[in-house]
Amino acid sequence: MSKKPNILFIMADQLRADYLGCNGHPSIKTPTIDALAQSGVNFSRAYTQAPVCGPSRMSFYTGRYASSHGATYNNVPLKISEITLGDYLRPQGYRVALVGKTHMQSDAENMQRLGIDPHSSRGVLVSECGFEPFARDDGLHPDQSASPDLAYNKYLNQQGYPGNNPWHSWANSVESNEGDTLSGWYMRNCHLPARVHEQHSETTYTTNRAIDFINDCPDQPWCLHLSYIKPHWPYIAPAPYHNMYSANDILPVNSTDAEYANPHPVIAAFMQHDESLNFSKSQVRERVIPAYMGLITQLDDQLKRLFEHLKNIGEYNNTLIVFTSDHGDYLGDHHLGEKELFHEASARIPMIIRDPNPCADATRGTVDNRLVQAIDLVPTFMEIAGATACPHLVEGKSLINTLYQRPESQPWRQYAISEADYSWRHARLDLALGPDQARAVMITDKRYKYIHYEHFQPQLFDLHSDPLEQQNLSDDDCYQDVSQRLQNALFDWYRTRNVRTTISNEVVAQRTGKAKERGYLFGLW
Amino acid sequence: MSKKPNILFIMADQLRADYLGCNGHPSIKTPTIDALAQSGVNFSRAYTQAPVCGPSRMSFYTGRYASSHGATYNNVPLKISEITLGDYLRPQGYRVALVGKTHMQSDAENMQRLGIDPHSSRGVLVSECGFEPFARDDGLHPDQSASPDLAYNKYLNQQGYPGNNPWHSWANSVESNEGDTLSGWYMRNCHLPARVHEQHSETTYTTNRAIDFINDCPDQPWCLHLSYIKPHWPYIAPAPYHNMYSANDILPVNSTDAEYANPHPVIAAFMQHDESLNFSKSQVRERVIPAYMGLITQLDDQLKRLFEHLKNIGEYNNTLIVFTSDHGDYLGDHHLGEKELFHEASARIPMIIRDPNPCADATRGTVDNRLVQAIDLVPTFMEIAGATACPHLVEGKSLINTLYQRPESQPWRQYAISEADYSWRHARLDLALGPDQARAVMITDKRYKYIHYEHFQPQLFDLHSDPLEQQNLSDDDCYQDVSQRLQNALFDWYRTRNVRTTISNEVVAQRTGKAKERGYLFGLW
Repeated sequence: MSKKPNILFIMADQLRADYLGCNGHPSIKTPTIDALAQSGVNFSRAYTQAPVCGPSRMSFYTGRYASSHGATYNNVPLKISEITLGDYLRPQGYRVALVGKTHMQSDAENMQRLGIDPHSSRGVLVSECGFEPFARDDGLHPDQSASPDLAYNKYLNQQGYPGNNPWHSWANSVESNEGDTLSGWYMRNCHLPARVHEQHSETTYTTNRAIDFINDCPDQPWCLHLSYIKPHWPYIAPAPYHNMYSANDILPVNSTDAEYANPHPVIAAFMQHDESLNFSKSQVRERVIPAYMGLITQLDDQLKRLFEHLKNIGEYNNTLIVFTSDHGDYLGDHHLGEKELFHEASARIPMIIRDPNPCADATRGTVDNRLVQAIDLVPTFMEIAGATACPHLVEGKSLINTLYQRPESQPWRQYAISEADYSWRHARLDLALGPDQARAVMITDKRYKYIHYEHFQPQLFDLHSDPLEQQNLSDDDCYQDVSQRLQNALFDWYRTRNVRTTISNEVVAQRTGKAKERGYLFGLW
Repeated sequence: MSKKPNILFIMADQLRADYLGCNGHPSIKTPTIDALAQSGVNFSRAYTQAPVCGPSRMSFYTGRYASSHGATYNNVPLKISEITLGDYLRPQGYRVALVGKTHMQSDAENMQRLGIDPHSSRGVLVSECGFEPFARDDGLHPDQSASPDLAYNKYLNQQGYPGNNPWHSWANSVESNEGDTLSGWYMRNCHLPARVHEQHSETTYTTNRAIDFINDCPDQPWCLHLSYIKPHWPYIAPAPYHNMYSANDILPVNSTDAEYANPHPVIAAFMQHDESLNFSKSQVRERVIPAYMGLITQLDDQLKRLFEHLKNIGEYNNTLIVFTSDHGDYLGDHHLGEKELFHEASARIPMIIRDPNPCADATRGTVDNRLVQAIDLVPTFMEIAGATACPHLVEGKSLINTLYQRPESQPWRQYAISEADYSWRHARLDLALGPDQARAVMITDKRYKYIHYEHFQPQLFDLHSDPLEQQNLSDDDCYQDVSQRLQNALFDWYRTRNVRTTISNEVVAQRTGKAKERGYLFGLW
């Protein structure tokens, strides 16, 4: 029996779906990712369950919606009762490891309550979201909080970049013409190259560590979550990627004066954030986005190197490869920066899957526009590994039938859902909301996108007639039926999430109507 | 400083709110409970969060709705991440113990995954829903599953009742005129006395154990969950309680021919259960309900004994006493037996609170008809103990302001909610539902009660014009606005439940807008 297929689960951070060649970007160079799409399936309507790092990733790793796993924002601990990808795949014989970022915050209070030593093997797995932390690096290391043990900093020191935090002072800083070191935190500096050689940059280093892991795992099937920090800010690219693109290469800004003049209240509050104010300026976009694009092309080049390594060791055609992102980046669209809200720039994600199995040959090179979600990867990987996702826990759907053109036992989902908890953002204060009141949820049926904001009116976009999402139709009487239908679908979704997670449907079915067989003779005369 | 007040949290099992003298029953004798109501507050509109033992109790013990704690039916393990009353009160210096029933099923799979020894002190607490199991006894012990270690059976053996399972063969069996032993499981036998002396019956034994606990705890403030199995079936009462009441003493059946002829599909399926078929017969009701009433009066007599003990040791006026039940009993009303659905007979519970604090003097003897829920006890007890319920976890509201006639900082709740998961019942099979499809949820605003059934039409009752809930108005056009309003309120409730349980609102508020202070200088030019 041949070894089970490996799983290479690649995630970029803050990569917009439309900044890939295979997704229609006119100038960006992503030949490796494009080729991956050509030899796999490119899901063109994939959504994150939450357009911000932490909750998105917790959904990717648990296969559950943000409201189900409860880690609704960055640094909200994932409840110790949540079962993760590693828990599912390890019993199938897989080594399940992490290189890069998860944004996992451990549930330290419950670990203490339950007496779980965070340094024990179980404690580490629970703290690391089920991954063996082969090389964890969450990628953001401000001087005031950089760990003295950060492996990448030690690596940079070894390569001759001195200092306490070369992640900042070298890899994410630049030099002025006068030789001054300028921080990459400031977007005005994004047109200059990082102070490290490309081969010492984060993307390359992360790829090195992935290769190290793969080489460390010659006999056992593995699932590697290779989770790059870039093209997430600081938007600093090493030469030659820093100026590979120019202002002529970026997508035109997607915003209207009307959006600015008459914004939704929540959007209006987000528009006041620094990133929105700055990204609304052409000067900023024209300086930052070329660097963002350079980081993407560097990532593509590193994937080429990684895939060649897999080919060299004979594992490429025994490895399922997924390329995705945790969320997008507004980059100034709709007068917004960063992410967190639900326009396509933020909530839609790239999702490319190449399964080497010949069963997938018929779909290679196709674009599939069904609604796909972050939570679909856990059941997909489970099916690859020979397990079946427990439907009382996992809320996503395996994509293997799609890849293999096999019929689904049930119709594909009609709606995708994404959630926001913006309690941590200054927008909440401007809106005079409490820390448990700043919530929103998006539902789309592909044609329409309906966004429910707690305490504010909804938004409705018609993605057919208005693919740029510039016109909110929620006040238009002609669309009340659409809004009501989508609101009803949201209500259905809330009622049917998986809350009964500690007992399987099979066990329930076995016990149905069996109380009397077990001796509980109630109701008999 | 005086000792903190003790908390005596008394629960009866399957006790209908209207089978108490203080709640208007014309013939039942419950002088002790009536006196408790006279010296405390009687909440006349209290609802269980789930009209079946397990999920109701998990809501009582966590202060959270069934959809939040996830243990939606009997024997569904409570997730190891759920925080319970014991977790909240123990740090306040309380000894928090159980005498009687919880219906807690431990989350063994997660305990194993996390390496928690179920026999360790932490493991025991987690397995016992946070209670020190001073004398746990879930009260139902069929011959095929009775534990050989059951303390009550050992006690009965010591008292001269032989056999492997005297719980069944003596305490819950009777003797025919011919001297044959007849099982108490069969309701035809409920008019005969238990084969044990009253002083050896479960209710008395449980009271003994409560007194043992109280005597064991002279110096430390305590919270005792005293959780009687009776008047739950088997409906077997010891003499003289078995025939203290007659068919003339029971409440008239609340059912109509129209309910039978044109039932809601889910009700119709429940009507086919043995307990419904049998309790629909006058013969059954007239034999069983007098025994049910006798068990209630026995319970009342035992509470008298317990309260006298508290007075004798000088603790009565340093003890907050709550008397409640986990759910009701249809007893044939609406052509139904048992519980699980949402008529008042099933979902409404007694809720009497006597706080000895002089601040409560103004409300003594009052009836309060605000909507109260099972989940309100955790925050009430926390306030008594000197703690504040964490609003990111606990979903109930403290009743102390009510008892003390202090103003609330926010308006009292407008709605009560109760949930059902009847997947384990034969009704699900009759309705051709999957094991994750048999759900329903009730919302009431006091005036109306709206019940949403998954896969079936709703029900709507006007409790003012139709307090007996005999006429479903959901199809009446005049009530569409009412239905829509209550459905909207349900949607609101689903969206705003506490899912973000691992971080407090205070911590969120502290961190709001502070990313840049922590060095994350995103969005700056």
